Amino acid sequence: MVGIIMGSDSDLPVMKQAAEILDELGIDYELTIVSAHRTPERMFQYAKSAKDRGLKVIIAGAGGAAHLPGMVASLTSVPVIGVPIKSSNSIDGWDSILSILQMPNGIPVATVALNAAKNAGILAGKMIGSFDEEISNRLIEYQQNLTKSVEEKIEKVKWEFKNEFDRHQED
Amino acid sequence: MVGIIMGSDSDLPVMKQAAEILDELGIDYELTIVSAHRTPERMFQYAKSAKDRGLKVIIAGAGGAAHLPGMVASLTSVPVIGVPIKSSNSIDGWDSILSILQMPNGIPVATVALNAAKNAGILAGKMIGSFDEEISNRLIEYQQNLTKSVEEKIEKVKWEFKNEFDRHQED
Amino acid sequence: MVGIIMGSDSDLPVMKQAAEILDELGIDYELTIVSAHRTPERMFQYAKSAKDRGLKVIIAGAGGAAHLPGMVASLTSVPVIGVPIKSSNSIDGWDSILSILQMPNGIPVATVALNAAKNAGILAGKMIGSFDEEISNRLIEYQQNLTKSVEEKIEKVKWEFKNEFDRHQED
Amino acid sequence: MVGIIMGSDSDLPVMKQAAEILDELGIDYELTIVSAHRTPERMFQYAKSAKDRGLKVIIAGAGGAAHLPGMVASLTSVPVIGVPIKSSNSIDGWDSILSILQMPNGIPVATVALNAAKNAGILAGKMIGSFDEEISNRLIEYQQNLTKSVEEKIEKVKWEFKNEFDRHQED
Amino acid sequence: MVGIIMGSDSDLPVMKQAAEILDELGIDYELTIVSAHRTPERMFQYAKSAKDRGLKVIIAGAGGAAHLPGMVASLTSVPVIGVPIKSSNSIDGWDSILSILQMPNGIPVATVALNAAKNAGILAGKMIGSFDEEISNRLIEYQQNLTKSVEEKIEKVKWEFKNEFDRHQED
Amino acid sequence: MVGIIMGSDSDLPVMKQAAEILDELGIDYELTIVSAHRTPERMFQYAKSAKDRGLKVIIAGAGGAAHLPGMVASLTSVPVIGVPIKSSNSIDGWDSILSILQMPNGIPVATVALNAAKNAGILAGKMIGSFDEEISNRLIEYQQNLTKSVEEKIEKVKWEFKNEFDRHQED
Amino acid sequence: MVGIIMGSDSDLPVMKQAAEILDELGIDYELTIVSAHRTPERMFQYAKSAKDRGLKVIIAGAGGAAHLPGMVASLTSVPVIGVPIKSSNSIDGWDSILSILQMPNGIPVATVALNAAKNAGILAGKMIGSFDEEISNRLIEYQQNLTKSVEEKIEKVKWEFKNEFDRHQED
Amino acid sequence: MVGIIMGSDSDLPVMKQAAEILDELGIDYELTIVSAHRTPERMFQYAKSAKDRGLKVIIAGAGGAAHLPGMVASLTSVPVIGVPIKSSNSIDGWDSILSILQMPNGIPVATVALNAAKNAGILAGKMIGSFDEEISNRLIEYQQNLTKSVEEKIEKVKWEFKNEFDRHQED
Repeated sequence: MVGIIMGSDSDLPVMKQAAEILDELGIDYELTIVSAHRTPERMFQYAKSAKDRGLKVIIAGAGGAAHLPGMVASLTSVPVIGVPIKSSNSIDGWDSILSILQMPNGIPVATVALNAAKNAGILAGKMIGSFDEEISNRLIEYQQNLTKSVEEKIEKVKWEFKNEFDRHQED
Repeated sequence: MVGIIMGSDSDLPVMKQAAEILDELGIDYELTIVSAHRTPERMFQYAKSAKDRGLKVIIAGAGGAAHLPGMVASLTSVPVIGVPIKSSNSIDGWDSILSILQMPNGIPVATVALNAAKNAGILAGKMIGSFDEEISNRLIEYQQNLTKSVEEKIEKVKWEFKNEFDRHQED
Repeated sequence: MVGIIMGSDSDLPVMKQAAEILDELGIDYELTIVSAHRTPERMFQYAKSAKDRGLKVIIAGAGGAAHLPGMVASLTSVPVIGVPIKSSNSIDGWDSILSILQMPNGIPVATVALNAAKNAGILAGKMIGSFDEEISNRLIEYQQNLTKSVEEKIEKVKWEFKNEFDRHQED
Repeated sequence: MVGIIMGSDSDLPVMKQAAEILDELGIDYELTIVSAHRTPERMFQYAKSAKDRGLKVIIAGAGGAAHLPGMVASLTSVPVIGVPIKSSNSIDGWDSILSILQMPNGIPVATVALNAAKNAGILAGKMIGSFDEEISNRLIEYQQNLTKSVEEKIEKVKWEFKNEFDRHQED
Repeated sequence: MVGIIMGSDSDLPVMKQAAEILDELGIDYELTIVSAHRTPERMFQYAKSAKDRGLKVIIAGAGGAAHLPGMVASLTSVPVIGVPIKSSNSIDGWDSILSILQMPNGIPVATVALNAAKNAGILAGKMIGSFDEEISNRLIEYQQNLTKSVEEKIEKVKWEFKNEFDRHQED
Repeated sequence: MVGIIMGSDSDLPVMKQAAEILDELGIDYELTIVSAHRTPERMFQYAKSAKDRGLKVIIAGAGGAAHLPGMVASLTSVPVIGVPIKSSNSIDGWDSILSILQMPNGIPVATVALNAAKNAGILAGKMIGSFDEEISNRLIEYQQNLTKSVEEKIEKVKWEFKNEFDRHQED
Repeated sequence: MVGIIMGSDSDLPVMKQAAEILDELGIDYELTIVSAHRTPERMFQYAKSAKDRGLKVIIAGAGGAAHLPGMVASLTSVPVIGVPIKSSNSIDGWDSILSILQMPNGIPVATVALNAAKNAGILAGKMIGSFDEEISNRLIEYQQNLTKSVEEKIEKVKWEFKNEFDRHQED
Repeated sequence: MVGIIMGSDSDLPVMKQAAEILDELGIDYELTIVSAHRTPERMFQYAKSAKDRGLKVIIAGAGGAAHLPGMVASLTSVPVIGVPIKSSNSIDGWDSILSILQMPNGIPVATVALNAAKNAGILAGKMIGSFDEEISNRLIEYQQNLTKSVEEKIEKVKWEFKNEFDRHQED
């Protein structure tokens, strides 16, 4: 199971994209709010119980001086994926990125792109997929669908613009 | 098994720290050079064969316009950890970080801090540890040793500086 | 012939400006979608066949962790012009610029300004014009038209604002 | 009493400047190591007991993804001064500054300049001095000494360089 | 009493949040406009008289080349909290932050996050609370309310999303 | 006389603020369009003739890779004030600022804040005012009016907010 | 023929790398000093005569407020490659990059990485190679040599580190 | 006369370059230390008396949160040139630049490049030269010497490197 946590319900529009892709990949998860600064005890409890509660990966999203992913990572052996969020109080996301990414030796956080909760979900899927053939197959299928969706767009622009490459391919 | 790759042998002093910590955690790995720009075919081969060769995680380090981690991630379902390297041609590491971190939807890279190959190794350990109790226990032990090493430093500064907190604790 | 490629159809509003200026300069081109991360095999094919298919220049646009221009450059001897795109998932364009510009020794990408697909087209024209008098003449004419269009604006502000310089010139 | 804490003994050369200035101002303090990521339980204990142990101000220094000042601030009503440290794993100090400064609503950290532990000590003195006339007088004296030390430098350059302003003043 | 000052009435929408939280905490304050660059004499007068007029903390907000907090700090022993404002003439707030934060040795400014006037008010409260039990209790209550407001949001998302953690807790 | 030039008529809304303040200060000026990149010969002519045509100061505005102010400065002994413009093709103004400010030894440009054409006008006034008592007096008056306009705002907020400082002053 | 120019002889250690690689590729070139700010007339002459003198590409290096590449590009139809140089007066190279890269519509500069004069030479080679089979072949050979040099490094690390991938390949 | 001031004697190695070039141009000056934060009264006195003491330009250098140039500009009608200094407590000079450059409407500072005290001196010379033919002539001569010194370097590299352009010129 994957745990999805975030510092505030204002992060929900971004972070629920992690839940949606996990649903799509058929991976079980739970989602709740855990604030490093407003509910520090709860954060301790959440992180400390993560392994025993069966979490295989934790996805933690936060913005500004984003301490949640790093603090949770320091309290559990479960791998933590950090999602830097470009929240209203963030300086174009730089603070969110740097305070999640630049963890000291010993306490890594797997950081993804700004607001990339969907990618956090896929990364969790890849981590689990390495030990679960079924999930792995769904990920391969997902990646093939990405390719297909690009191919459809290629079709669309194919006749609109001059395009020797693709017309040639067809012959 | 973990695969450790890097774009150039100049990245070796940084990247072998990933190998060392994996040794310490008792996790099998291989280490070699794969350059996205100078050996693109090799990169394809490496990434395409990763899953079948039994890799559970790939750690990829690169500097400057660092395309290796992201390109490998696009070619395999195995999770990829990216290590941004502050190489001689990098602008204080900003280019390395951004070209590894800011991957598009669908193709995540688990990015760690600048030059943090050791943390990449630990993160790989955490990913495997979620499915391997023995590794997990070693990580918990590792994290306890981190705490202990801090405690020794606390002892060292304890009598050098005024310190009611720690002297009190002892009573 | 010039090849214009981009990672996604969302880059089309920017990238078709390259096509338009090439049309204006009377230079043949093809335009299609090639994604480094979603269609890596296609990217290989495109780059590997570029020279034999008669491409003299490739213009590649991408945003965020923008790997397309650099990867294509590593796979062909045809010169590649990179257009950093300020896409929705980019951090003000800095990631796009740095991951295109900061290529390692041996694999240059001719980078133009953020979103400057039009300039990429003109640059392609200049490259071809060095070996094609007709194109060169059209570029000189184009540059003269730039001057003329400024001169028209000068006329416009000439009597609106105090302007000894230009009124003097006329005498 | 002022509590001075830092994440690692490598921060000691910077952070002991806070202790030295507090000594100079005659303000009692304690100094020890508390790591947010390596000794999270200790951090909780330290912050939770701060008020009852009589601390009036806490000075917390940290580098990179610097979570110590903000986490301590979230666990106590005692004001926390954060010192961003340009540690070896920091990106020119930007990560240290942003992850201390950009705290969310409700949990402020009083941030001082990069490596400015001395200023943290003076700021603690000012906070205490607002309620302690003796400390306040020492601060005023300290500030007057700053002025004097500049005046001595003025004397030094006075005759070396042309200087109508200061020679005039003397008349 | 706390003094709240700002360089221009355009800063009022941000800065009055400091006044509001001080009202909530039951701390007396005054609020007015003092411009370092447009009313330098007034700034001198304000800062020089601060201590005798009974101010325990000064909160100063400014944007762009923000000199007000630092100049006031150089003219009084009263601690100064600086609020960097993302004003219309500021470059994303970077100028405001750096010209308030990076004060030289001897003259600290307690800097809070960009536009964080509310946090400036709370920080002032914490400074005073260290010497005033009543204020301290109100701050502890305030912090408990923060926790409660998060708990309410947790309730809200509890049944909307899968959430073993919180449902479990209840048993 | 002051010369006001800019690279494009799209810079006019910003740059005419220089003209307006010069009007207000009673300083003669001319305003026209001179593009470093689109009309380089005209730029040469303009700069080379500046001194003989009686210009005492040149104000040059440009955005992006802003070469106009620096190139003009290299072609005349007349002082050049550079106005970095946050044009549509600029990266938040950073390119405009750096390519105007960072001139090599021997060729200074007096750079003002981003979009600060009004300040460029005032700076030109100050340069001329050093040698023209009448202009100098108008500038002193202008600066007094700035103070007065702040004082009116002080009045406005005086009774709206608690304000011991200003009410006291009146007694 | 390729023209290599730079603003100062202090740029020579970087810029002669362009000459060296052109020698290696068998491409004729000339190298001299042309300063936009110190010899503007010479710059005009150089750029204006470039085409008639048979230059197919111009490589221009400059640091700080680097106007040379862009100004030359505005004065000729010959394509210009810009090399941003991290000179002593540059702010970590950011000014050099932005003032070369961010050219306005109509006047592109083909920008390469910071200090990447070697890549500028290779890029010039690629431009010429598109119209000269012999040069093109040398470039393909050059790129193959890059691959070979990586393969030698692979051999070196092959037995030093665990490496299933490469040992396997050999079987 | 020109006034040269700086916040600390540690700025002297940079700032005396302004004095040296003024000596070379035959312009009278005075040089002293005035600290905005450590001697605010002295700063007031200096700025307020500047005009009456006959200063035509003030050159003010400072680093970090650099308030001296802007504060002096707010207290006098004499134009102020600001020199951002990359002092030991500065973040690569960004704080120095932004806190000098980004002055609000009404109070301009003529900012030059990082550490460019020499250019500040030349800019002061240009301001005075607009009203003093002799100084103006010296500046023109100075600029011609710049050109000559480049020409000597051109000679030096002329025969070392292939150089059709300059050898041609001679014929």
